[in-house]
Amino acid sequence: MAGNSFGDVFRITTFGESHGEAIGVIIDGCPPNIDIDETFIQSELDKRRPGQSKITTQRKESDTAKILSGVFEGKTTGTPLAMLIPNEDQRSKDYSHIKDKYRPSHADYTYEVKYGIRDYRGGGRSSARETAARVAAGAVAKSFLSQFGIRIFAHVSGVGKIEAPNLVSHDIDELTQIRESNIVRCADPATANEMIAFIDAIRKAGDTVGGRISTVIQHVPVGLGEPVFDKLHADLAKAMMSINAVHGFEYGSGFAGSEMQGSEHNDLFTNPENDAEKLKTLTNFSGGIQGGISNGMEITFRTAFKPVATIMRAQQTISREGETTEITGKGRHDPCVVPRAVIIIEAMAALVLADHLLKNQIYDAAR
Amino acid sequence: MAGNSFGDVFRITTFGESHGEAIGVIIDGCPPNIDIDETFIQSELDKRRPGQSKITTQRKESDTAKILSGVFEGKTTGTPLAMLIPNEDQRSKDYSHIKDKYRPSHADYTYEVKYGIRDYRGGGRSSARETAARVAAGAVAKSFLSQFGIRIFAHVSGVGKIEAPNLVSHDIDELTQIRESNIVRCADPATANEMIAFIDAIRKAGDTVGGRISTVIQHVPVGLGEPVFDKLHADLAKAMMSINAVHGFEYGSGFAGSEMQGSEHNDLFTNPENDAEKLKTLTNFSGGIQGGISNGMEITFRTAFKPVATIMRAQQTISREGETTEITGKGRHDPCVVPRAVIIIEAMAALVLADHLLKNQIYDAAR
Amino acid sequence: MAGNSFGDVFRITTFGESHGEAIGVIIDGCPPNIDIDETFIQSELDKRRPGQSKITTQRKESDTAKILSGVFEGKTTGTPLAMLIPNEDQRSKDYSHIKDKYRPSHADYTYEVKYGIRDYRGGGRSSARETAARVAAGAVAKSFLSQFGIRIFAHVSGVGKIEAPNLVSHDIDELTQIRESNIVRCADPATANEMIAFIDAIRKAGDTVGGRISTVIQHVPVGLGEPVFDKLHADLAKAMMSINAVHGFEYGSGFAGSEMQGSEHNDLFTNPENDAEKLKTLTNFSGGIQGGISNGMEITFRTAFKPVATIMRAQQTISREGETTEITGKGRHDPCVVPRAVIIIEAMAALVLADHLLKNQIYDAAR
Amino acid sequence: MAGNSFGDVFRITTFGESHGEAIGVIIDGCPPNIDIDETFIQSELDKRRPGQSKITTQRKESDTAKILSGVFEGKTTGTPLAMLIPNEDQRSKDYSHIKDKYRPSHADYTYEVKYGIRDYRGGGRSSARETAARVAAGAVAKSFLSQFGIRIFAHVSGVGKIEAPNLVSHDIDELTQIRESNIVRCADPATANEMIAFIDAIRKAGDTVGGRISTVIQHVPVGLGEPVFDKLHADLAKAMMSINAVHGFEYGSGFAGSEMQGSEHNDLFTNPENDAEKLKTLTNFSGGIQGGISNGMEITFRTAFKPVATIMRAQQTISREGETTEITGKGRHDPCVVPRAVIIIEAMAALVLADHLLKNQIYDAAR
Repeated sequence: MAGNSFGDVFRITTFGESHGEAIGVIIDGCPPNIDIDETFIQSELDKRRPGQSKITTQRKESDTAKILSGVFEGKTTGTPLAMLIPNEDQRSKDYSHIKDKYRPSHADYTYEVKYGIRDYRGGGRSSARETAARVAAGAVAKSFLSQFGIRIFAHVSGVGKIEAPNLVSHDIDELTQIRESNIVRCADPATANEMIAFIDAIRKAGDTVGGRISTVIQHVPVGLGEPVFDKLHADLAKAMMSINAVHGFEYGSGFAGSEMQGSEHNDLFTNPENDAEKLKTLTNFSGGIQGGISNGMEITFRTAFKPVATIMRAQQTISREGETTEITGKGRHDPCVVPRAVIIIEAMAALVLADHLLKNQIYDAAR
Repeated sequence: MAGNSFGDVFRITTFGESHGEAIGVIIDGCPPNIDIDETFIQSELDKRRPGQSKITTQRKESDTAKILSGVFEGKTTGTPLAMLIPNEDQRSKDYSHIKDKYRPSHADYTYEVKYGIRDYRGGGRSSARETAARVAAGAVAKSFLSQFGIRIFAHVSGVGKIEAPNLVSHDIDELTQIRESNIVRCADPATANEMIAFIDAIRKAGDTVGGRISTVIQHVPVGLGEPVFDKLHADLAKAMMSINAVHGFEYGSGFAGSEMQGSEHNDLFTNPENDAEKLKTLTNFSGGIQGGISNGMEITFRTAFKPVATIMRAQQTISREGETTEITGKGRHDPCVVPRAVIIIEAMAALVLADHLLKNQIYDAAR
Repeated sequence: MAGNSFGDVFRITTFGESHGEAIGVIIDGCPPNIDIDETFIQSELDKRRPGQSKITTQRKESDTAKILSGVFEGKTTGTPLAMLIPNEDQRSKDYSHIKDKYRPSHADYTYEVKYGIRDYRGGGRSSARETAARVAAGAVAKSFLSQFGIRIFAHVSGVGKIEAPNLVSHDIDELTQIRESNIVRCADPATANEMIAFIDAIRKAGDTVGGRISTVIQHVPVGLGEPVFDKLHADLAKAMMSINAVHGFEYGSGFAGSEMQGSEHNDLFTNPENDAEKLKTLTNFSGGIQGGISNGMEITFRTAFKPVATIMRAQQTISREGETTEITGKGRHDPCVVPRAVIIIEAMAALVLADHLLKNQIYDAAR
Repeated sequence: MAGNSFGDVFRITTFGESHGEAIGVIIDGCPPNIDIDETFIQSELDKRRPGQSKITTQRKESDTAKILSGVFEGKTTGTPLAMLIPNEDQRSKDYSHIKDKYRPSHADYTYEVKYGIRDYRGGGRSSARETAARVAAGAVAKSFLSQFGIRIFAHVSGVGKIEAPNLVSHDIDELTQIRESNIVRCADPATANEMIAFIDAIRKAGDTVGGRISTVIQHVPVGLGEPVFDKLHADLAKAMMSINAVHGFEYGSGFAGSEMQGSEHNDLFTNPENDAEKLKTLTNFSGGIQGGISNGMEITFRTAFKPVATIMRAQQTISREGETTEITGKGRHDPCVVPRAVIIIEAMAALVLADHLLKNQIYDAAR
């Protein structure tokens, strides 16, 4: 109800403020007997942590997750799996510049009005630091999904007005290798270079820029998604829109599809092997989901991130007392969030898939 | 869990197949003492019902909602408010063309694999007929919201490649009058004419086309939305994406905002009356929501609808037995759904707002 | 949240007031492909309906359930199964004796304060008439459970100070035959006669009396129940306590067990066939549940019902205006509810078991 | 769904095994601006911790709770409040006596069948150690409730066949003082002495014994409880039955009430001050709840605890391999749980009341 949980069956609850003692997550509903590899969880967190490259924030935080419960001798036990990520740099800093002023396009004002109290240190709960807990939980979800062969891949497909060409390969191992070979995490090397140069220039100008991430999910069984309100793409949309700075979501043909006509947009069924259990479609404008239920084709979606609100320039704002004043970004912030957000998108997608895979189990009861 | 409920506090559960006995909805959690005007509910349903004009389906169905419970002497009692909409035309028709074939870009195949059984008559539960129940519930939600002055307005802002200009007026009464004066429900008269001509041509060609709907919500109090997963825009996204045929959602600056830079995108606070409780922003790229919480500005979002899948042309498909075959749309279908979908968008927006308004009540407990 | 739903996976939502248009229920999450026999549903409702015998209320209501959705060609489809039970006798009666007075030990006063409005006709939503919807849903749950061989049996084990001896037979067919052969629904014929005579005398005196119902559930697989809060017996307790007039619940050894010592109370494991998958216990003080999870033994529990509050005698009370006044029961009421409540207990037990059986499916995901 | 959360609005999720790294709890939905006194939380935990007296287990564990999030400058912020209680004594012990054997009337067997894996160390998740997290959360709930004047008091009213007389005083401060002056936590000094002597004798005999706890809740506003399934007493029942070893629950007149007649059981309304908002009843067989909603009178209920299953005597059992074997309790266990369980009962009652108090807020929306 208060909004810090996600999922029905594979359900996570996160906690923690950016400058409190620690952040963390409880996974309730993780099936038992899943192999847990802490090295893998850490490698996922490393893709999100600050200080990775010149185009991310220069803050240093190791983001080490510690498992507190729910794992015994390397396997999940079916009991709640709790993970803790201590905040390393929580000493009292000078927050006077944000304590009494509302930063533009931040959550300072809305939190203060809603709750009547605000942990202003580094944004508190509204800080994107919270997403580290999602990444840790997403790593567990991925471990579960890998048992079914399900693979998730996201990459930066757009920065500002720069747009990467459509993916040529659909081999996730290959795509991941390209993506991880450049600091902007774009699976097209030429575009990656262009994006990096652009972000670097933006950063030097004390400004920030938005971007877009494209995702594909492969080997999803037919049948995931619960009509009518919990359609698979509706839950993916909510998951993605809940990530800080996301302003748009589309799946399959998306907004462009709304300009098309039915005769060109319909995905015709085909069946090379005459096996009714494994239909395919000639095109995939449906993005792998029909009637809210996965149809076995690749699931595809795209998300739009607004530019980071903290810029290194003076901006007009209002103080808590209602006086007009100025504010300038301090500290070390990302000029563009998408390179680090790629792994957050994957984590949220994994959580949605794990949840729906488990929900779909119940239909086997009567078989 | 099985996906037929929406909302946490103001919670609806819908039921019914397109060609069963009836469809309907239970609202649980509607506050007591709300005035219920059945005429208003019916007028909302009339905006969604088939047979309105030459650019909608020619099916005739009166879609009359009957209140079964939860209202006493014209007011809600706080107990479940159930509404029933009988299916008038439920006699056994010839469905052989869809009983044993999977219609392209429909839910036939996915439902059959998921459930192992399918009520093929008119699409059954996957039919957009289900949305009539949402409209009835949305009318009750609007009645509740009107007590707080909250107004919701949606209109058709795009059909195919035709795009309406941005709204000039923000007066919802005026906009509604324009919208209801044309059959495509676009608040710009010139664009409306263009859209109508285009849809009519598409219809005559036996084809269909997609479109876009833009929505504004006014007079929303500051504080609605539950961080971190149940952000107000995340719940709006899920609500809209759960509507049949919706493939994309964006709020505020949306996808276009992801091309912008922070220095131009940030919404600077202003305070003409020096009243800290009523801040405004100079721009509204945030779409009325910051950190997942309403900030008192107009909430704006846009949704994209794919073209209707049923076209009056022969298309290749696969039968249940796995044989390649052909299928041609029969009966009376919409060439474009957006004119009738406007009221569904408004209904879902009303349900999200009512739910979050009630959730936000709990924070008053400690005041 | 507003309390009219029960269950997580196999989830029911009921609606309707005693003197409104109709009552009814939606089951969301019923698995597909379950055979639905409307005759069976009706036979269950017949065991609850008024006017069965001289020791129940003499009101006449046929309580006919109509299925509106979710069933196709005799089988569930996995979509919401809605059932409607019209209220036959809903004409405006003279309710002046309860409109402005609070009946003692009824819900009149608490509903009025909570909601600020009250549908006083026949108790409205607080009437036990609501339980007919539970019985209809319970019949569907039983149909599902029967596929797993699970059997539920309840009978009247106590009326006033009269207590039936422990059951001799554990053959549910045999027990049901005895129970249904007498109007008080006690599986011990001699005690049944005593109870009937006592209730009849109470009725003639214009008074009412409480009673107790004992339940056994057989052939429950090992593993149902979700620690730590949703223990199987905790959910059974909530289910039973939610039935009108229930004031107490105990399972296994219950209150008597709290007087025992561990050395006599522990249920020792035994294994006649040396088959670790099918352990048994020598005693069953655990009532078939250990650590909140079914252990494969018979599940046993007992519920206590207070005497019906409406008596045919004048009682002091307070009017809505705060004046001291008198009230006397009118109409036709049960002198003792337990004979009709037996089937409500069974229905709620079936709903709990169906829900937990489906929940337990998720653990198979990783196997 | 997986059972480790409790409450809808004021919602807790607990985690941790008895011999893992730590146990803990997240409270999501705690209203902002509640004063948090860590000393009070610790004093509550001290009432539950082992090693208090000669009649509790002699294990030593300090049970120190650390707040990780959700509190800023001594007040709650409305964000998740996480608390961690490290397990101090988690080194590898010799658990061979329970690793491969199923302890009678414990959860070893059912956990192993349900999950296919079991953290056997000290009972893992099924250990009553989990209830420390509930006590910590309950302390926060009490802090919230104290703003409304709501007081909760529980004490040991029965041990074995020893039963305390009904409470003479209803002054909770006075009752608490008496209760805390004796190690069995009974508010009747004479009975307390009898109980202590009996438990001590039981302990010396290597045996255990069950008991009963009675609870009163004062100053509850009229209107808490959500008909029809989430009746206030139904949620109290579930809360109490979810506590380890509880086998029975009754409220108000309880099982004894089921032997009474309506004419003696009905609670007649009275109104000394002619103030319709503040009715009272002459008797309180309803236990402060009518129609599932609090009526402003004292809420009363009673819970029954079975004897502790671990006894210091050899008992027959079955090994994981299905062989008949013997097992004898090792280590330091409680001869009777009720003295330590008093505070767990209070904590669960506080959680139920806090949740329902917040739920009831939503009805104010339309006022």
